[in-house]
Amino acid sequence: MTDLTQAVLNGDRRALARLITLVENDTGEGQQALDGLFRDTGKTHVIGVTGASGAGKSSLVNCLVEEILKREPDKSVAVIAVDPTSPFSGGAVLGDRIRMRAIADNPHVFIRSMASRGALGGLAQNTQAVSLVLDAAGYDPIIIETVGAGQSEVEIASLAHSVIVVEAPGLGDDVQAAKAGIMEIADILVLNKADKAEVDAAEMALRSMLAMGFPSKEEGMWVPPILRTVATNGEGIAEVAAAVHEHSAYLHQSGNWQKRDQIRLQVLLRGLLEKKHHQEWEEFIHRDEFQQVFDQVIERELAPHAAAERLYTDSFLKNSH
Amino acid sequence: MTDLTQAVLNGDRRALARLITLVENDTGEGQQALDGLFRDTGKTHVIGVTGASGAGKSSLVNCLVEEILKREPDKSVAVIAVDPTSPFSGGAVLGDRIRMRAIADNPHVFIRSMASRGALGGLAQNTQAVSLVLDAAGYDPIIIETVGAGQSEVEIASLAHSVIVVEAPGLGDDVQAAKAGIMEIADILVLNKADKAEVDAAEMALRSMLAMGFPSKEEGMWVPPILRTVATNGEGIAEVAAAVHEHSAYLHQSGNWQKRDQIRLQVLLRGLLEKKHHQEWEEFIHRDEFQQVFDQVIERELAPHAAAERLYTDSFLKNSH
Repeated sequence: MTDLTQAVLNGDRRALARLITLVENDTGEGQQALDGLFRDTGKTHVIGVTGASGAGKSSLVNCLVEEILKREPDKSVAVIAVDPTSPFSGGAVLGDRIRMRAIADNPHVFIRSMASRGALGGLAQNTQAVSLVLDAAGYDPIIIETVGAGQSEVEIASLAHSVIVVEAPGLGDDVQAAKAGIMEIADILVLNKADKAEVDAAEMALRSMLAMGFPSKEEGMWVPPILRTVATNGEGIAEVAAAVHEHSAYLHQSGNWQKRDQIRLQVLLRGLLEKKHHQEWEEFIHRDEFQQVFDQVIERELAPHAAAERLYTDSFLKNSH
Repeated sequence: MTDLTQAVLNGDRRALARLITLVENDTGEGQQALDGLFRDTGKTHVIGVTGASGAGKSSLVNCLVEEILKREPDKSVAVIAVDPTSPFSGGAVLGDRIRMRAIADNPHVFIRSMASRGALGGLAQNTQAVSLVLDAAGYDPIIIETVGAGQSEVEIASLAHSVIVVEAPGLGDDVQAAKAGIMEIADILVLNKADKAEVDAAEMALRSMLAMGFPSKEEGMWVPPILRTVATNGEGIAEVAAAVHEHSAYLHQSGNWQKRDQIRLQVLLRGLLEKKHHQEWEEFIHRDEFQQVFDQVIERELAPHAAAERLYTDSFLKNSH
């Protein structure tokens, strides 16, 4: 255990910020620290919050953090903002950022934004690594906010124990949920901006989609609740916090907590292996060996599949170390 | 040399179609055949034709094939249609397909369409493998038609000796070339549908972009010509055929022919290696070894980086064969 990791375990926030940077950049020190802290991980509830841009995810996260700390004042909560438009990441408009400041200045809250582009070895793996550091440092819950577009809403399901999908009426398509199978990953559905006129139609659309996904309710099965909120004034947030709490209890009871934990670790381990492989590979194809075999292919002295066999099986796998 | 490859070298078209399917599906027989034919490859001029949907690529390819056969009646020409909307692939409207039938029925023309989705190991590698088979079978030139969207216009540059970028006035954006650096890969710029009113504006836009790309013309440098065509009636096609011929001569003279050939082989070889790796990898992570180490991670007995090191370096690289 280094001084830095010890400082993190003692609650030093500046040490925590520094360590996260080391882990994000995958330095040797960061790797060592993550391994050193690993035994202290695995108890924290990780909550994913996703949804279309404009649904009000950040406002909801803001209120949810306040609500959790009101319910349990001794807790420390961390927010990882992967969404580049999140006010937590410095995106969005000034008004939002000011509203966020209340929780940002709270000593029981730690906020970290992650670059969503150009992350070496994959964002999912990096987010998972940072989440483990925060877990070891005693933050519980950890809220990961991602924008629901493309890959990320599927990835969030592999990073969190509980996934909150945030919808809002009037976001262009009737309800954004119709897209990209986002309903499949939702544990809790939040219909934000519930003070809007179109909210009833939006809720009906959500309910009918949900009914399709759960044609029959079996005993003990978790069916995502649909909760209305107005995050800008805190309406309905207590119910969201209660649902998060209930879902955690359900996960423990049903044995699904451990399953989700395994998926999270698999994401991390596969990411680390892929990164290792990528590095070996880059070195390999710049070695003389590769060039020599390739030269024979160019001269038509060696055929492609024969060359691939020789290079991969005989050289790459056998001699990489 | 098997009977099948011998039949292909003897000009049997049905054998050729069958062999291409074996190569596309990467069967053992297909791999063996490709290796067997490899010595007979490397003489054919491979021409890429790319551009936005609606620019008239297929009509242009159709006319160009007819023009080439008019100039050199002893030649055999192959067309690989990667564009899913191409009439050669069975896409597009009936009128187009009828127009294509003239060349499709010509015994000196061989047309093959490739599935652009779900290709195992990458479309670029598969297209390159099929192109080598056609090369060995004596087709010269081989024309590869791809739709200019996303990755493919960059890939086409790694598959062809000469790249024709087809533009047309009035395709939404003033000129599509502004997008995605497509100008950088063009060896010949064709402004099709030159009978349209907006053609002068489109040509001016192309010229100014070209001028930015080639601020000073050095001796012996190839500057892409801009050629106007009306592919539906054959106008300007003779000039395109002449430019293709000139570009081939330039490539041989400048030594760039060999360079492009090397890039093409590199695409193939890297594709084969990646595919091999992917297969090994899939087997590896389903082995007991992986599961055992992973179980230790789940139990927090082994930390992530230590596990990755043990799995990758000690197991994957050493024991894959």
